[in-house]
Amino acid sequence: MPKIDLSAIPARTGSSYPAQYQGQMEGRSQKRLGDAAGLTQFGVNQVRLAPGALSSLRHWHEQQDEFLIVTEGDLVLIDDTGETALAVGDCCAFPAGDENGHHIANKSENDGVFVVMGTRTPTETGWYSDIDMKVEVADGQMAFLRKDGSVMGDK
Amino acid sequence: MPKIDLSAIPARTGSSYPAQYQGQMEGRSQKRLGDAAGLTQFGVNQVRLAPGALSSLRHWHEQQDEFLIVTEGDLVLIDDTGETALAVGDCCAFPAGDENGHHIANKSENDGVFVVMGTRTPTETGWYSDIDMKVEVADGQMAFLRKDGSVMGDK
Repeated sequence: MPKIDLSAIPARTGSSYPAQYQGQMEGRSQKRLGDAAGLTQFGVNQVRLAPGALSSLRHWHEQQDEFLIVTEGDLVLIDDTGETALAVGDCCAFPAGDENGHHIANKSENDGVFVVMGTRTPTETGWYSDIDMKVEVADGQMAFLRKDGSVMGDK
Repeated sequence: MPKIDLSAIPARTGSSYPAQYQGQMEGRSQKRLGDAAGLTQFGVNQVRLAPGALSSLRHWHEQQDEFLIVTEGDLVLIDDTGETALAVGDCCAFPAGDENGHHIANKSENDGVFVVMGTRTPTETGWYSDIDMKVEVADGQMAFLRKDGSVMGDK
């Protein structure tokens, strides 16, 4: 059945970020729609943000195109240019290699929801705009490192 | 600016199908959101269907994952299993190689809109479920052929 039963997909909370950043992801839950439906070439996640929550640490991707569409509530795009209000139906695109780091914040009093898709690639490097961190992805494993490549515990 | 100005993107009507099938695409208009925003790895189109319109001829893709989300109105998914109602927020996924041909119909009295994304691949073959036609795509060019590979004008 191509129609996805959204209610049957578990909402995941928590974060794979290093411990000192996990607190910033409170109030975020995600449903992995694409995985549940058998898609392999791009990921599709439905992301729900409680009031005050963030979608991610502000970041950009070297290799992977990213696209999102707001489906519920009022959200805010935060990128290098500042803040941009997003309402239901608004879309954002983040081409691979564009160094304009971005994330989505919920500054409203109600939940906000968006659906985001990103290309799957064998390897990837993501860069975090506001902190000294990058992520290297290979073989499905993520390694969070300082931007100079040193391990996070070094300094 | 990652937020896409939807009002600035032209709505395209018409169809690239062979002439005998173009009439079935009346009432459909599309905005190429991904192209407008600089995405290259997957296509993202916003598709508006007037009452009675179809998204495409019913088809499936050999190589390309496809995903859609309804953003306005009431639509109907038509696939090998029959008809499934779709409302705003409903999502459908069509994994590459799944031979369950599909399209979206608007059987309501008002416009319906969805956003659809599909992987870009160097080549592709699409198969049309209800007619003797396939499409071969290479180098950005589409060739519509009979399912046995003969040209459309042969019979």
